[in-house]
Amino acid sequence: MKEIKIFAPATIANLSCGFDILGLALDHVGDEMVVRMSDEKGVRITKIIGQDLPLEPHLNVAGIAAMALLSNLEVDHGFEIEILKNIKPGSGIGSSAASAAGAVWAINKLLGSPFTPTELVNFAMEGEKLASGIAHADNVAPALLGGITLVRSYEPLDVIKLNVPKDLVVTVIHPQIEVKTATAREILRSHVTLKDAIAQWGNVAGLVSGLFMEDYDLIGRSLEDKIVEPVRSMLIPAYEAVVEASKNAGALGCGISGSGPSIFALSKSALDAENIKKAMENVYSNIGIPYDIHISPINQSGIKKI
Amino acid sequence: MKEIKIFAPATIANLSCGFDILGLALDHVGDEMVVRMSDEKGVRITKIIGQDLPLEPHLNVAGIAAMALLSNLEVDHGFEIEILKNIKPGSGIGSSAASAAGAVWAINKLLGSPFTPTELVNFAMEGEKLASGIAHADNVAPALLGGITLVRSYEPLDVIKLNVPKDLVVTVIHPQIEVKTATAREILRSHVTLKDAIAQWGNVAGLVSGLFMEDYDLIGRSLEDKIVEPVRSMLIPAYEAVVEASKNAGALGCGISGSGPSIFALSKSALDAENIKKAMENVYSNIGIPYDIHISPINQSGIKKI
Repeated sequence: MKEIKIFAPATIANLSCGFDILGLALDHVGDEMVVRMSDEKGVRITKIIGQDLPLEPHLNVAGIAAMALLSNLEVDHGFEIEILKNIKPGSGIGSSAASAAGAVWAINKLLGSPFTPTELVNFAMEGEKLASGIAHADNVAPALLGGITLVRSYEPLDVIKLNVPKDLVVTVIHPQIEVKTATAREILRSHVTLKDAIAQWGNVAGLVSGLFMEDYDLIGRSLEDKIVEPVRSMLIPAYEAVVEASKNAGALGCGISGSGPSIFALSKSALDAENIKKAMENVYSNIGIPYDIHISPINQSGIKKI
Repeated sequence: MKEIKIFAPATIANLSCGFDILGLALDHVGDEMVVRMSDEKGVRITKIIGQDLPLEPHLNVAGIAAMALLSNLEVDHGFEIEILKNIKPGSGIGSSAASAAGAVWAINKLLGSPFTPTELVNFAMEGEKLASGIAHADNVAPALLGGITLVRSYEPLDVIKLNVPKDLVVTVIHPQIEVKTATAREILRSHVTLKDAIAQWGNVAGLVSGLFMEDYDLIGRSLEDKIVEPVRSMLIPAYEAVVEASKNAGALGCGISGSGPSIFALSKSALDAENIKKAMENVYSNIGIPYDIHISPINQSGIKKI
């Protein structure tokens, strides 16, 4: 019986100004999964450790994504999936994306890689649709491809890997409150002013330029979101205080990770990241909110065999 | 008496999806100016050849920009400006920007370069304010700095030079009708849908990535404007026909140059640019609209002494 054990990284979508288009993969934070070929056709989720999530494949993002892949291929086998779930659902660091992307990556590998990375993004997006109601790609793309990814368009799907400045480090704090992606999306306005939109695409262009030029100051100046952050940050306790403390501790810039409630900061050294971690912890300790916190460089290769 | 003769390039602002933030400088198209130090204080425009434009400095973009510079410096001299105006006002290829940028660049040079390029952009923007009512920088920045520029923000002014893929060539056609920048701005909507805004910043991010990666196909795919082009193109005769013919002739993509009526196409070779030129000419010849047309590589250095 063929099986594969993989690591599926946590991801940070949006990256402040890059709402719905940018995302990055973390290196030290993520789920583990074992995917096993079986004689019985179909997809079975046999075990989930760490979180209370449905085992029924049609109610589980990994199951949905796996079935989306298999519906595009004639195959005589089935697949069993075990998930060691380290990423908490609703944390905003791509919990559903890791499961969905991990499942399709592993099955594709076991089948001899019949699908391209972009095709895998498409299948994994079906899992995201179950989780949030929208088949978005800004978490599954960096999970599958690694690094920092741009989803330029959805029709057709056009995913581009951007340059990752080598010293970039992420600090991300997860206050232990749950914000559903669907809720975080509902509160957004359907229209924005042209003026704010122009400021936003100026910052997006600045951020992308900063990544390619490895200009850390430019990256920092560009991490400004005039459209989504002012609305969504209201759902996150002490958001402004965490951002201010992080910047004072050396963060290039900060933002809401995905739809929140996690908050990320980018910095240009591990030392800065440690100082930012302390500053973030300090804010939540003072107001008595429990949290998880992670420091990680950027994962250049995405999901990998372990 | 010290004097300097300069070439001030025509520029293409917006570059489709990059409304109000992106611009590039042309290499073979532009104005010539002579700027001369004089004992009499103040700014005088002594001669304008080629176009009927006001000589009064406070009614002329070059005069306004020059005075903005001089108001920031104690100087015992005055300056005389002569302009050989090759770029037609209202063409959409940065006629006012060339005059404004040329004036401040030349005076700065004659004074021993007391100001930085970004400061010069600020002074030249004062000229743009006279021309269009808004102190925009997306033409004066590429005129002054050369290449392809990003105006990330205005407050504070943050201008970034992007990478220019070496084979990129511009074809730009100017149908001989006038579209005032102010009019072209008035017809824009003050609000846009979040959906369109996301598509736009996806394309902006794609275009900037394509420039840095020198990925010509990605540049082409990203030259899509869902917000401004659908409105402004109504002011330009046979806009869709010119775009379609250009793409069929090998254009990577097209857009409105500045606020129009000029239409630009980017291509990855001089041969493609020639074919695009013929295709564009063909459209306007058939419907009997007179035009100017130019082919140019991208000017890497901006305004220069000649």
